[in-house]
Amino acid sequence: MKSKKEQIFEVSARLFRKRGYVGTSMRDIAKGVGVEAASLYNHIKSKQEILHELLFDVAGRFTTGMDEISDSSLNPLQKLEKLISLHVRLAVEHTDAVSIIIGEWVHLEEAAKNEYTGLRDTYEEKFKAIIQDCISEGHFKQVNPEIALFSILSTLRWLYSWYSRNREISSVELEKQMIECLLVGLKK
Amino acid sequence: MKSKKEQIFEVSARLFRKRGYVGTSMRDIAKGVGVEAASLYNHIKSKQEILHELLFDVAGRFTTGMDEISDSSLNPLQKLEKLISLHVRLAVEHTDAVSIIIGEWVHLEEAAKNEYTGLRDTYEEKFKAIIQDCISEGHFKQVNPEIALFSILSTLRWLYSWYSRNREISSVELEKQMIECLLVGLKK
Repeated sequence: MKSKKEQIFEVSARLFRKRGYVGTSMRDIAKGVGVEAASLYNHIKSKQEILHELLFDVAGRFTTGMDEISDSSLNPLQKLEKLISLHVRLAVEHTDAVSIIIGEWVHLEEAAKNEYTGLRDTYEEKFKAIIQDCISEGHFKQVNPEIALFSILSTLRWLYSWYSRNREISSVELEKQMIECLLVGLKK
Repeated sequence: MKSKKEQIFEVSARLFRKRGYVGTSMRDIAKGVGVEAASLYNHIKSKQEILHELLFDVAGRFTTGMDEISDSSLNPLQKLEKLISLHVRLAVEHTDAVSIIIGEWVHLEEAAKNEYTGLRDTYEEKFKAIIQDCISEGHFKQVNPEIALFSILSTLRWLYSWYSRNREISSVELEKQMIECLLVGLKK
């Protein structure tokens, strides 16, 4: 049984995704949870607090995952495969929350916004370093690491939107297909 | 020398991209063009008309490009390469306008919105058919065509945002790198 607070976050993630943070009111959230709007405030301070919690929870999962992979003794190509798994797993397990990290962070308050973009930049830097290692250790061709990063990340970012319309695919199969499309290549 | 109308569209595309359609006022557009707000109406009827023109202009370029490529006598793999070129070329030549087609179409009026999503769906169907031909004619491995489509399109959709921060790269080089990343594969 989920706690009231967990229900609030779950409903908020779904609504923020569907209507955006700005287009969602505390009243909408209360209605989704099935409580009076006033009683929401027994559990959370504000809509901003909900956004903050949702975004930093997901960002934390990505950051922890990245650190574990980055610090492991795997070779860089294996690390990339693990990163793709991480994105697939988080998109499958936290579809709504992951879907809002792309657009809705702009509505964080200034200090939180800076902290958030800092986390994102660090994440991207570590991702790029692994791609660079793939190139310098001969796993990859001599491609532009910026373009390879951008190509992989953009696909991973759209994963949630594709996945929510195609839930019949297993996450194992999805992971295998993503590695094929993103790393190995489509061409025979 | 650009006409006043062309200047209005150019400034609007830049502002819609930066602040969104909703966050941009006719006053902002007038200021960007360097005229009085009232005199904008000598050239266009409304902000909605500007959005409509910008989106359908770009959609038309994609649709025409797709039809030429799709109907050509090229093999499906060559067609895909041409589609990547089309996306690179439009992202390079119309960076601001291309950048708003992803998010801002939701602000079109109902009838226009339906027409617009119809164009998009047809475009994606034709794109998928070419990928399916690549698989059935043996150019590609037996991948899930939906995932391959999504993987390629999502990268192409983020191209404009990456390109606007990395303008020093030539479009020829960018095209080559995109084909390598998206079709041939990164792995050695």
